[in-house]
Amino acid sequence: MNIEHINPFITSTVNVITTMAFVKINQDAPYINTNNNTTGAVTGVIGLAGNDVVGSVIISFTAPAILEIVSGMLSEKFTEITPEVEDAVGEITNMITGGAKRILYDKGYKFNLALPTIVTGEKVNLNLKTKGPRVVVPFRLAASGALFTIEICIEKSF
Amino acid sequence: MNIEHINPFITSTVNVITTMAFVKINQDAPYINTNNNTTGAVTGVIGLAGNDVVGSVIISFTAPAILEIVSGMLSEKFTEITPEVEDAVGEITNMITGGAKRILYDKGYKFNLALPTIVTGEKVNLNLKTKGPRVVVPFRLAASGALFTIEICIEKSF
Repeated sequence: MNIEHINPFITSTVNVITTMAFVKINQDAPYINTNNNTTGAVTGVIGLAGNDVVGSVIISFTAPAILEIVSGMLSEKFTEITPEVEDAVGEITNMITGGAKRILYDKGYKFNLALPTIVTGEKVNLNLKTKGPRVVVPFRLAASGALFTIEICIEKSF
Repeated sequence: MNIEHINPFITSTVNVITTMAFVKINQDAPYINTNNNTTGAVTGVIGLAGNDVVGSVIISFTAPAILEIVSGMLSEKFTEITPEVEDAVGEITNMITGGAKRILYDKGYKFNLALPTIVTGEKVNLNLKTKGPRVVVPFRLAASGALFTIEICIEKSF
């Protein structure tokens, strides 16, 4: 996997969170996932599939992070993870991955997005059937320091 | 959603389980999923994505069902859910969906498969971000009656 393929997801994450939720975020150093547990309390999983590209993107939000983000997005104070918050995670997962897809399309990487699945619960074991590395990019909300991560796993001709 | 699009998954499930694991299975009546909880203890989730098709397939095995199936597949007695069993769930998810993909391709429905994700744990909340119905087809192993289900959710031009 090439950093050139990770950067579009970082760019798209910053775009989506800052423009949709009006929340500033800072990126921490990426690392390779060596266990299968979700890092947050609500997690969006979406598949990427094309003739030359197969992958998964896993976006996992701690409760403080997603509550602050969804409160910003919907201009309403959320204090617990409701079905509306889960829906927002699906929407954010779609938007971030869709944004990265457009950037990668312009570089010649063509794939479609599957439906996002929203998994609730901490430390849920999500085992990807892949031989590729699982690159995790952590982000922290500027105001609170609350954490969320985006994990990118892409196989085949990348 | 049309039953014509469910049947290829039923056919492929019977093919894969009987030919790979040498286990006979019987299909129960399909139903619509109205909650988000996994029906089994180990669950494979795979995305379908094409220009005209977006969907997810969720194959959830109770522990007795998957232990019997994997014991048949690998010719070795499995008594607990090990990483090897999780891997087999990913493989079975790929094979069943791949088989259905080939049947649907011949009918003019073209899509690619994403990477399977294996979720372990009972009653894990898996919320699909979809407007389509989630059709669940239950199967029981002929010898033991152990249950597994295959859930098909397909959107767009189907």
